[in-house]
Amino acid sequence: MILDTVNSPQDLKTLTQSELLELVGELRSEIIRVCAQNGGHLASSLGAVELIVALHRVFDSPRDRILFDVGHQAYAHKILTGRKEVFHTIRQEGGISGFTKVSESEHDAITVGHASTSLANALGMAIARDTLGQDYHVVAVIGDGAFTGGMALAAMNVIGGQKRKLLTILNDNEMSISENVGALNRYFKEYQTRKWVQDTQKWGKQVLEGISPKLFNLVDRAKEAAKLMLHQENPFYAWGIRYVGPVDGHDLPGLIHILEQIKELDGPTLLHIVTQKGKGYGVAEEDPIYWHGPPGFNPDKPEKVSKGYSWSAAFGDAITELASSDPKIFVITPAMREGSGLVRYSQTHPERYLDTGIAEDVAATVAAGMGLRGLKPVLAIYSTFMQRAYDQIIHDIAIEKVPVVFAVDRAGIVGGDGATHNGVFDIAYLRTVPNLQIAAPKDAYELRAMLKKALELQAPIALRYPRDSVEKVPEGTWPSIEWGRWEILKEGRKAYILSFGKTLKYALEAALDNPEVGVINARFLKPLDQEMLAQLAQGGYKLVTVEDHQRMGGFGSAVLESLSGLGLQAEVRVLGLQDVFYDHGSIARMHAEAGIDAASIRAALAELGLPAQMALRDLR
Amino acid sequence: MILDTVNSPQDLKTLTQSELLELVGELRSEIIRVCAQNGGHLASSLGAVELIVALHRVFDSPRDRILFDVGHQAYAHKILTGRKEVFHTIRQEGGISGFTKVSESEHDAITVGHASTSLANALGMAIARDTLGQDYHVVAVIGDGAFTGGMALAAMNVIGGQKRKLLTILNDNEMSISENVGALNRYFKEYQTRKWVQDTQKWGKQVLEGISPKLFNLVDRAKEAAKLMLHQENPFYAWGIRYVGPVDGHDLPGLIHILEQIKELDGPTLLHIVTQKGKGYGVAEEDPIYWHGPPGFNPDKPEKVSKGYSWSAAFGDAITELASSDPKIFVITPAMREGSGLVRYSQTHPERYLDTGIAEDVAATVAAGMGLRGLKPVLAIYSTFMQRAYDQIIHDIAIEKVPVVFAVDRAGIVGGDGATHNGVFDIAYLRTVPNLQIAAPKDAYELRAMLKKALELQAPIALRYPRDSVEKVPEGTWPSIEWGRWEILKEGRKAYILSFGKTLKYALEAALDNPEVGVINARFLKPLDQEMLAQLAQGGYKLVTVEDHQRMGGFGSAVLESLSGLGLQAEVRVLGLQDVFYDHGSIARMHAEAGIDAASIRAALAELGLPAQMALRDLR
Repeated sequence: MILDTVNSPQDLKTLTQSELLELVGELRSEIIRVCAQNGGHLASSLGAVELIVALHRVFDSPRDRILFDVGHQAYAHKILTGRKEVFHTIRQEGGISGFTKVSESEHDAITVGHASTSLANALGMAIARDTLGQDYHVVAVIGDGAFTGGMALAAMNVIGGQKRKLLTILNDNEMSISENVGALNRYFKEYQTRKWVQDTQKWGKQVLEGISPKLFNLVDRAKEAAKLMLHQENPFYAWGIRYVGPVDGHDLPGLIHILEQIKELDGPTLLHIVTQKGKGYGVAEEDPIYWHGPPGFNPDKPEKVSKGYSWSAAFGDAITELASSDPKIFVITPAMREGSGLVRYSQTHPERYLDTGIAEDVAATVAAGMGLRGLKPVLAIYSTFMQRAYDQIIHDIAIEKVPVVFAVDRAGIVGGDGATHNGVFDIAYLRTVPNLQIAAPKDAYELRAMLKKALELQAPIALRYPRDSVEKVPEGTWPSIEWGRWEILKEGRKAYILSFGKTLKYALEAALDNPEVGVINARFLKPLDQEMLAQLAQGGYKLVTVEDHQRMGGFGSAVLESLSGLGLQAEVRVLGLQDVFYDHGSIARMHAEAGIDAASIRAALAELGLPAQMALRDLR
Repeated sequence: MILDTVNSPQDLKTLTQSELLELVGELRSEIIRVCAQNGGHLASSLGAVELIVALHRVFDSPRDRILFDVGHQAYAHKILTGRKEVFHTIRQEGGISGFTKVSESEHDAITVGHASTSLANALGMAIARDTLGQDYHVVAVIGDGAFTGGMALAAMNVIGGQKRKLLTILNDNEMSISENVGALNRYFKEYQTRKWVQDTQKWGKQVLEGISPKLFNLVDRAKEAAKLMLHQENPFYAWGIRYVGPVDGHDLPGLIHILEQIKELDGPTLLHIVTQKGKGYGVAEEDPIYWHGPPGFNPDKPEKVSKGYSWSAAFGDAITELASSDPKIFVITPAMREGSGLVRYSQTHPERYLDTGIAEDVAATVAAGMGLRGLKPVLAIYSTFMQRAYDQIIHDIAIEKVPVVFAVDRAGIVGGDGATHNGVFDIAYLRTVPNLQIAAPKDAYELRAMLKKALELQAPIALRYPRDSVEKVPEGTWPSIEWGRWEILKEGRKAYILSFGKTLKYALEAALDNPEVGVINARFLKPLDQEMLAQLAQGGYKLVTVEDHQRMGGFGSAVLESLSGLGLQAEVRVLGLQDVFYDHGSIARMHAEAGIDAASIRAALAELGLPAQMALRDLR
């Protein structure tokens, strides 16, 4: 195995071309083997193998900085940069991250997980390099999906204005997680169909002034001329960025050659390469959407598995049904059709479905425009990505109480994806915003009741639910709900646990067989059920609040605030996530460590003088 | 006066061309008259007069929706749409808003104040129109400055992909608030210098397929051909958007003519017009930066006035001095050089200064890249605009504790700009984020001490300060500060008021002559000074917290949370802004209404059994 001889990128420098080609195959096998075991970002990592080998052959990491946008396509990079022995631990408890992570390796230039950030980061690095009088290369690798994010486009604008040496590689695989959308994508496609156009002379010469003689010579050579197209008429030219491409991203010798040619060019350059997601693994080439991030599989006989019935699916089913009887419902997703459970909806109601690409800010404000003009927009968005639409939620939606329903998925700690993806800030950043209501269903019945009611209320309302499985509800089931009222799940004589959503199971377990302790489904997080809260305080009950969200600024904090506002005293213990970022790993372990699991709740109750009264059964 | 006869846009339909031209002059006079009285967004509103008259002549508001990006250029629109009698109240207590506002007039299509949101809003409206089977025009007016915002660029991408009928007017005046930056701007300029190019034939014909015959005829006519350039080689073409322009934005008959011509075109169209900020008012044409938003002036003898020494200037002076002795300091602003007090800095240290354009997300992540590579980046940003970089602060900065110092200006209620600009959420949305520290200086001495120390600590730290004047500190003054420790400003026997920044003056006033009540400068908001807080609780002191920030999730909430976490009981009254949006008007009145002024603090103290003991002098 060539891979056995490669312990750092330096070891690539001496390999022959045929050895490099062999290495590419070995990397693919290793990626498939480990993804089959652990699950993981298979298709995009397979598509980037040649590019990553070429980059580490031509550039000199960690001196040169190679930034991977999103960071989920960098599995080959992890293997080549000293992590091949631990690669099998990827995304696992105690193992390496599924994304690049600065604190994990000196070769990981950025800590990442969200899209479209690499270009601004790269510009900052190029400026730092020049300001400190240093000399190294900065290379950003960004997919065409991430290019639908405004942050990438705006960064291009500044990069073009700055004129610093910086190489951007557009890894164009014609899809992000879902199929790609928007005009730029169509434009890239056009480019691809016109690719290998021979006629570079007509346009090339004008633009080539200012490009190094080396590249200029390159253009005159037949083979390269065929692979190189320099056109004025593309958006990068308008941005003042030298455009090179499109180039076959699976032609390793070609990639190495062109990278060596353009490496020393001054100013900002964009190399457009075309790759195939899932490259080299038949099933993943055929269905890169399923194989984008599959759970474990049999590598010899790869089959799709049903992932169980998720909260996302429960939302998707509910909104599909509701939209069938209400022609004003319109669902928007920022490039998360599959993840948000919207495949069925998008097929049933294609005319009332919009994918904005990875542009959460645009998605929120498009919803605002719809809500202002008589539609009932529903924005399906992950809690962690909602952070990217925060100002738009305040400025375009909340100020005028525009009726937008937010279906906030992946709330709480998410597990394998780690710190960048945890949805643990939403209650804090949303509840401070006037006019916005927040609720959290305990099961799919309550989700359906809340969703239906929220659409009737025609107000900005966020419904948050976790990345988890949930019991399926029969079609046509529409329970009603008393809006704004909490629900007593178990009566208690001396104390109540207040919780909602996923952590209610911990609360029920902790209160089991303890008649002193009751449990309340505090499903409305803003406004709180002040009436019930006042009754609890006035009744002298001790309270424990429990949430899968940062303790700072969360639900428990809201309870304390409300009691103080009502002028009521109560003994309250607030259990929530600690003031740290939680990495990838076991959700149960992190919940225990944070102190929000059943054992932690029992400990808090004991501190309040309410120990469990009998032997506890473990319900888990 | 023609204006006397115009009470709604309908009244424009019957005016002759010469009457319309007269109206333009009258509108300019009225805008100058009222801005001289109240202050206001003079230069941009003067630049958009012909455009607004043309729009209301050709389109049919409120049926047709005309969206003004940012909304500060729409003074003529306000006057023409039934608000001429109240126009003199603009930005004043109880008067009309300085921006467009949905709840103010049926003619205001969006409530706005932040840049780059109009296109996504317009797309949402176009989709709503088509989905509901309606038929009206949607027109978005957006400046070239707002086009540096990623949200506008990403929205263009979706608009191009959607192919719905939607007119975008790019109002290109070569600057936003500061001088414009970035490559697109340079590109627009190139277009302008090449403008009136006669040769539309070569390129025009290809693109014109698909455009209505009416416009095609237009191209063949000599005069229009000179003003119309349809090029493939521009970014809008790549986005699939029909480009028309550039057109002289002060040629009213020309504007009306071209709007009538392109009005009925299907699909997305962009009309590029060129205007001059401050048009028609000599001083404003010459110095549109000062006259962007001047305070009141003598309209016959307009002179610049010094606005007093602001917190922004105090920050600007401090960072200019620090950067002179520390070559690693680098300051970044998202298009707010003047507002953030950075004119002097940008002149003293031009090589360590970056204006990213109106792209707060890019600015934050550029800072991240710099911080990762050895610089000490300082991001100067308004509290309200920081909302637009929220995810980048979490994802690109906080997770890896990248050393970025945030100079958070305009914290608290801002007065004239109103709800869209109040900086009243930052403590809530920042304090929930791990690894991020938050502090608030009480004066310019403390600002300098904190800024210097923050740069030494090399950690992500936000310093928040208000839009206000502050006592100037002599150059070279660098007081030290005990990082993390609160400061007792006045001892109290039974109670303490905890406050920081601007509201400390209310606290001192409320505690004056009352030996029972002390005042603490709780200048470190995260982490809190837990030691002092514990001492206060253990000492049995009653506490009142006061902040110019939402009560929900703010500093008082942090105090309650901390006490609960420490297992300590204390009687605490939390005073902060109510759960509403505060409009433009008198800051003192809003503080009183919210219940955070001195009288409100005294009332809270009285409730705690600590009434003022002697006659109170009114210090205000």
